[in-house]
Amino acid sequence: MSLTSTVPGNPKEARALFRSGVSGPTAGWAAGHTQANLIAVPADWAYDMLLFCQRNPKPCPVLDVTDEGSWTTPLAPGADLRTDLPRYRVWEAGDLVAEPTDVAGHWRDDLVSFLIGCSFTFEWALTESGVPMRHIEQGRNVSMYVSERPCRPAGRLHGPMVVSMRHVPPEHLAAAIRETALLPAVHGSPVHCGDPAGLGIDDLDRPDFGDPVAAEPGDIPVFWACGVTPQAAVMASRPPFAITHAPGQMFITDARDEQYRVA
Amino acid sequence: MSLTSTVPGNPKEARALFRSGVSGPTAGWAAGHTQANLIAVPADWAYDMLLFCQRNPKPCPVLDVTDEGSWTTPLAPGADLRTDLPRYRVWEAGDLVAEPTDVAGHWRDDLVSFLIGCSFTFEWALTESGVPMRHIEQGRNVSMYVSERPCRPAGRLHGPMVVSMRHVPPEHLAAAIRETALLPAVHGSPVHCGDPAGLGIDDLDRPDFGDPVAAEPGDIPVFWACGVTPQAAVMASRPPFAITHAPGQMFITDARDEQYRVA
Repeated sequence: MSLTSTVPGNPKEARALFRSGVSGPTAGWAAGHTQANLIAVPADWAYDMLLFCQRNPKPCPVLDVTDEGSWTTPLAPGADLRTDLPRYRVWEAGDLVAEPTDVAGHWRDDLVSFLIGCSFTFEWALTESGVPMRHIEQGRNVSMYVSERPCRPAGRLHGPMVVSMRHVPPEHLAAAIRETALLPAVHGSPVHCGDPAGLGIDDLDRPDFGDPVAAEPGDIPVFWACGVTPQAAVMASRPPFAITHAPGQMFITDARDEQYRVA
Repeated sequence: MSLTSTVPGNPKEARALFRSGVSGPTAGWAAGHTQANLIAVPADWAYDMLLFCQRNPKPCPVLDVTDEGSWTTPLAPGADLRTDLPRYRVWEAGDLVAEPTDVAGHWRDDLVSFLIGCSFTFEWALTESGVPMRHIEQGRNVSMYVSERPCRPAGRLHGPMVVSMRHVPPEHLAAAIRETALLPAVHGSPVHCGDPAGLGIDDLDRPDFGDPVAAEPGDIPVFWACGVTPQAAVMASRPPFAITHAPGQMFITDARDEQYRVA
């Protein structure tokens, strides 16, 4: 399903659609606005999660942390984190137990929500620099893989780094690296380019999350750290409860990508 | 006291000197190695401190957080955070109660230590770009001021942003901004240039921390967010106990400045 020609360019309109029950990957939505991964954990796990993010800033760049029980964020005034994402995942003891389009019925007063930078944010900078986005061209979610690189543990949390992959023509590789390096708040420069075996990935056509995306001849697979990493930590570390976004179905904030650009 | 011609260029040698009781400002020490601010708080304040840093990344860019009670860090293998800084400050309920050269006798098993990026780190990049460092030329500590800009509170922690100031000749202003923008882990680009009144600073010759530094004709005062900010939060928020470095007398790590450069 290609949404790029018809999706709202305005974050508030996008969130209103999602609140009404629309779901699907958000790549290509709300040009120039920062998208975010969500992970909410009980307050007694919040320090471990914040420290995990601090110790793993490439996959887990924190954009905002809510106060306990709050479902609001200054990144999107008026938004409700319980309803305004396209689709959620609900986790109990590390097991995925539901994938609803809102989590109002699952919410707990002790939840602390982390909004983590998403690579969809830098896709606009790449597009403007002439780097083709194969997954958007093909109307697909980006491909994501669980790598064999361990994150640095924090308290009770541990797990592997998840990466997103984009096929980049060699002549655009320098721009892809340069542009994303200037956006460390949304994963920054790639963690790996080329042979997927370097990350322990066997088959690019079988992503762990998202869709397979076809390469053009000569394309180089380029891997960025991915904000699904906290979900891999939930699976590995089994906190009693967590709520996350569904991979690729992000929270769209009112923040502008440009404000995260360092130079 | 100008140390720049005689101080060790090696972080391990510098730390050994400080362990033996040597103290003084560390500007100009250990060229190319990352210096850090220290703040250690009891574990039940650690989440508030980490969240305070996350919400105020310009003054409080976190380089490392220790496990509870630990005095070691991967940023400087073999170093002891209790003895290897030139001088410390010990705080009780927000009051400064001691300024010893080691804190082995003040240490507590429940302390969590935060190492926060320091602007001394980017002085090497500025020097290499031709920007004169007036305070080093004059053998002084950098000038630091409590601004009237509030930090974003986190839990029980609140307080004003502290800034460091360097006199920059106008022809070097662009380089000073450009070079520091590429180092967000050590405060990044300036928060203010020019009239100190814009930050609520009345008199540049009366810094709140460090030494007054003389300007050359035409110099523009340039202000960067400063890692003494957590100490201002300690004074304002009065946690029961804290240990910090003395302003300007930093922890010198083995990390290279270059590893914090984003592009």
